[in-house]
Amino acid sequence: MKIINTPREMRALSQEWRCAGESIGFVPTMGALHEGHLSLAQAARRECNKFVASIFVNPTQFGPDEDFAEYARPFERDCALLEEVGCDAVFAPAPQDIYGAGGSTASLGARAFVEVGGLSELWEGATRPGHLRGVATVVAILFNVVRPTRAYFGEKDFQQLKVVEQMVHDLHFDLQIVPCETVRDADGLAMSSRNARLSPAERQAALLLSRALRAGVEMAHSGECDTTKLGAAMQAVCSEHPAVEVQYIAVVDAQTLATLPALDGRPARTLIAARVGSVRLIDNVPLN
Amino acid sequence: MKIINTPREMRALSQEWRCAGESIGFVPTMGALHEGHLSLAQAARRECNKFVASIFVNPTQFGPDEDFAEYARPFERDCALLEEVGCDAVFAPAPQDIYGAGGSTASLGARAFVEVGGLSELWEGATRPGHLRGVATVVAILFNVVRPTRAYFGEKDFQQLKVVEQMVHDLHFDLQIVPCETVRDADGLAMSSRNARLSPAERQAALLLSRALRAGVEMAHSGECDTTKLGAAMQAVCSEHPAVEVQYIAVVDAQTLATLPALDGRPARTLIAARVGSVRLIDNVPLN
Repeated sequence: MKIINTPREMRALSQEWRCAGESIGFVPTMGALHEGHLSLAQAARRECNKFVASIFVNPTQFGPDEDFAEYARPFERDCALLEEVGCDAVFAPAPQDIYGAGGSTASLGARAFVEVGGLSELWEGATRPGHLRGVATVVAILFNVVRPTRAYFGEKDFQQLKVVEQMVHDLHFDLQIVPCETVRDADGLAMSSRNARLSPAERQAALLLSRALRAGVEMAHSGECDTTKLGAAMQAVCSEHPAVEVQYIAVVDAQTLATLPALDGRPARTLIAARVGSVRLIDNVPLN
Repeated sequence: MKIINTPREMRALSQEWRCAGESIGFVPTMGALHEGHLSLAQAARRECNKFVASIFVNPTQFGPDEDFAEYARPFERDCALLEEVGCDAVFAPAPQDIYGAGGSTASLGARAFVEVGGLSELWEGATRPGHLRGVATVVAILFNVVRPTRAYFGEKDFQQLKVVEQMVHDLHFDLQIVPCETVRDADGLAMSSRNARLSPAERQAALLLSRALRAGVEMAHSGECDTTKLGAAMQAVCSEHPAVEVQYIAVVDAQTLATLPALDGRPARTLIAARVGSVRLIDNVPLN
């Protein structure tokens, strides 16, 4: 497995592969890999001739008060896990390789950025200003450097997935986005690098997020179409523990992410975001 | 010379060329070709193995009150001119090929777009809201489809050139931007597709733009460093004809386009925009 640090070297390898007719699977990550990432890696390994993962903690998708500095960076462990899956190359640039001098404090104020109008303003966009712009921009950069045939994204970050899908469509990137199902612990908690920062008590409280989502799914399956009632029931589940502070619970159109007043047969999704102690978690499930 | 209408076909041709090791020169245009475009075409032809021009009147870079509908579209004449230069392929998509259904009325409100923070807010950005976003976005799309090695832009649209250069740098597009000098008529008027809409009297009045720029250059060469004085002198030249309504005259840093209070040895440029009758014209020159 190659470890590649510079865009120039990554680009050359990718160009060589493409011209040899190889398909290139790509899993962009911020490292701190868990079973969720590894399921993406396995899909890329299975479906493509070559498989590249990137490990890059992207400063521009963190807000000024967010956890960029303390985000876990267990690089050697991550590489060992990727090697086990059969990864061909890890692209691990430094912030300055992506954003130039001062890269780790990069903001997008005076730079080129990519934004997805409409989608970027909802939910995570409203709660974390600039976050989705940072995501779209770094994904565009990574696509331009890695030039994959297929790129794998987890449904756990559902709005991110939709933003990237729309960006690829609208800007005519020459690749296919492959969505992959959220991987959960046995108790239902969606895998996230941030779970490691939950205390044992917080981890118990965090289970309420997936429990609330399941409660919503069950009500919908029993015929409840009124999304206000669904939302209230899910909020009630979350209220069982004072450490869970809900930021939003929303039943949305699975394509546009616009709030649905009622379930009407269109693909729908419930999105939830909450703080549990000092850790912010998100999760989502399909409703039909 | 091939005429290509679909992104899919353009992409396939470009991929074939790249994998054969050919360099690809690209000149994006809105058609209505004049000597300025042809000088770009000749440079691309001279410097690259393959040369692609695009002809696409991009709706998203026109404001609601601007001249999108009446913009000239002499497609067959344009193709004949490109063929004479030795063009290999003309990429001429319809608006819906680029923006989907409803393409010719596309706005970027609910789509992915590219913007260059800072640079996009000055001069043309301030005068034509959304214009530079529309330019950056369509150029990103064209780059993703055509995948050139080198792309040629005229200095006539100097801010557009700077926006594209910064986009290519920041988003890591794998190509080189080649700036080409403005081509002028014998009387000094910078070539523009919009010149065709000037009446004979307006065309005479329009000469004041390049005369004003030259007056500024001469003052600077004679040692005048105070940009307020340079601006006033150039404004005075434009005031010689009542049909010339100046929108801005600015002496700027040639890299950042920020206003320079004084010439201090840094590369500087004078930018001018004016309405002449119903036609809006821009021009610029280097000051050192």
